[in-house]
Amino acid sequence: MRYKLTIEYNGSNYFGWQKQPDQPQKTIEELLISAISNVLNHEINLNCCGRTDAGVHAIAQIADFETPKQIKPFTLMMAINHYLNKEEIAITNCEIADENFHSRYSSAMRHYQYKILNRRAPSPLRKNRLWHIPTLLNLEKMQKAAKFFLGEHDFSAFRDSRCQALSPIRTISSLKIQQNQDEIIINISAKSFLHHMVRNIAGTLVLCGQNRLSPQEIPAIITSKDRAKSGANAPAHGLYFLGADFKSLNIGATATKTDKTK
Amino acid sequence: MRYKLTIEYNGSNYFGWQKQPDQPQKTIEELLISAISNVLNHEINLNCCGRTDAGVHAIAQIADFETPKQIKPFTLMMAINHYLNKEEIAITNCEIADENFHSRYSSAMRHYQYKILNRRAPSPLRKNRLWHIPTLLNLEKMQKAAKFFLGEHDFSAFRDSRCQALSPIRTISSLKIQQNQDEIIINISAKSFLHHMVRNIAGTLVLCGQNRLSPQEIPAIITSKDRAKSGANAPAHGLYFLGADFKSLNIGATATKTDKTK
Repeated sequence: MRYKLTIEYNGSNYFGWQKQPDQPQKTIEELLISAISNVLNHEINLNCCGRTDAGVHAIAQIADFETPKQIKPFTLMMAINHYLNKEEIAITNCEIADENFHSRYSSAMRHYQYKILNRRAPSPLRKNRLWHIPTLLNLEKMQKAAKFFLGEHDFSAFRDSRCQALSPIRTISSLKIQQNQDEIIINISAKSFLHHMVRNIAGTLVLCGQNRLSPQEIPAIITSKDRAKSGANAPAHGLYFLGADFKSLNIGATATKTDKTK
Repeated sequence: MRYKLTIEYNGSNYFGWQKQPDQPQKTIEELLISAISNVLNHEINLNCCGRTDAGVHAIAQIADFETPKQIKPFTLMMAINHYLNKEEIAITNCEIADENFHSRYSSAMRHYQYKILNRRAPSPLRKNRLWHIPTLLNLEKMQKAAKFFLGEHDFSAFRDSRCQALSPIRTISSLKIQQNQDEIIINISAKSFLHHMVRNIAGTLVLCGQNRLSPQEIPAIITSKDRAKSGANAPAHGLYFLGADFKSLNIGATATKTDKTK
């Protein structure tokens, strides 16, 4: 049986997704593997859709694992959440997936959101949930700049030096920026991203919003392939893994389909 | 000079608003008085619009104080926030108020919000921000029940035994319940409330949503004046002090009016 999990987490107190040897701070992968293994009574391998950095949050991270055991998805979700109840990590859905399903390789589109608090005063209720920029950003300029990122480009100028991807070519399918009261919300979708790509794009969009960079300069920054020409890596705590779309796959019973909320 | 402050706070780590002697956990009033006194170099008295209990949040708590010093509201706001930067409390606006202004006695209407997370899985990103009720609530029944609370009533059945108000008569001007995705949001407004009144009403509305109480039983519960007949006191961490309206008063310069966001 292959199970697909949807996971929400507050990234603030974790050292990112990936299991790290000799790292005193816990990682999300490590805690999930431990909770799932506790439920199943055997070791598992966990595939993940988008490994997030320390501080980055997820509304709907996707992961999958295999087990010889047959458990109702709803029961499995509740059991894993029981072992996670002291953590800021929770399974929000569990589905039986096709045996060929792979959270990383079956993903056809990934969705991220970057949130900015744009007002003078900080927000205690949204601490570590948004990037606080106290000076007024020019939304229109950010929206103009966003258009230049769309489509297929060599994104070397927005790639972290530690990025291990074989190619720097990526295709941004959608990049939208909206204002919602004192928040500026950037939504970005692509089949896949380079390391730090979303945060580097967010940092560059902010430069445009601060009138420190003209939207018209974006194409030249992209073609320069020079990381030094783009904006700073925006803080991790403003970034959310929103979810992913998958190639058609047979999804069997789910935690919501099999067991009605009583 | 009398200054009016608008304050946002995450109530989770504080022992409520009011200064408490011999209480190891800090209170919001105590921390604000200390920050303001640090800025002004003299002691102050702080009037407050709605003293909140431990765990209760505020989007726009209102408080005021007097000082012989003349300081630009914007400068004052930034200076107080500087002393609060390790706390989950922030001044979001500062205004020069009429000398007769009093956050408690000038208030003509107080607005509270109670938030419920209504889904199976907990939400790590909204931990301590909503009351998590995993079983599906009947929104329509809650909305039907809400109507019976409107207007002037003796709210003894929804009053905490420690309540010090002289009269149990209060007038609810508005009580609306909406669903926003997985959240059920209760908005309630009145000139003033009894101690625990909003949380006791929320707990009673939830009983109706759980089909454990019929909306039609609400009038009898109100007229019984018996606290034992109404629902449980809903958890503090779902409650927000949203703001207040004041009798017409002369507001002078404000942090936002005098100083443009640069």
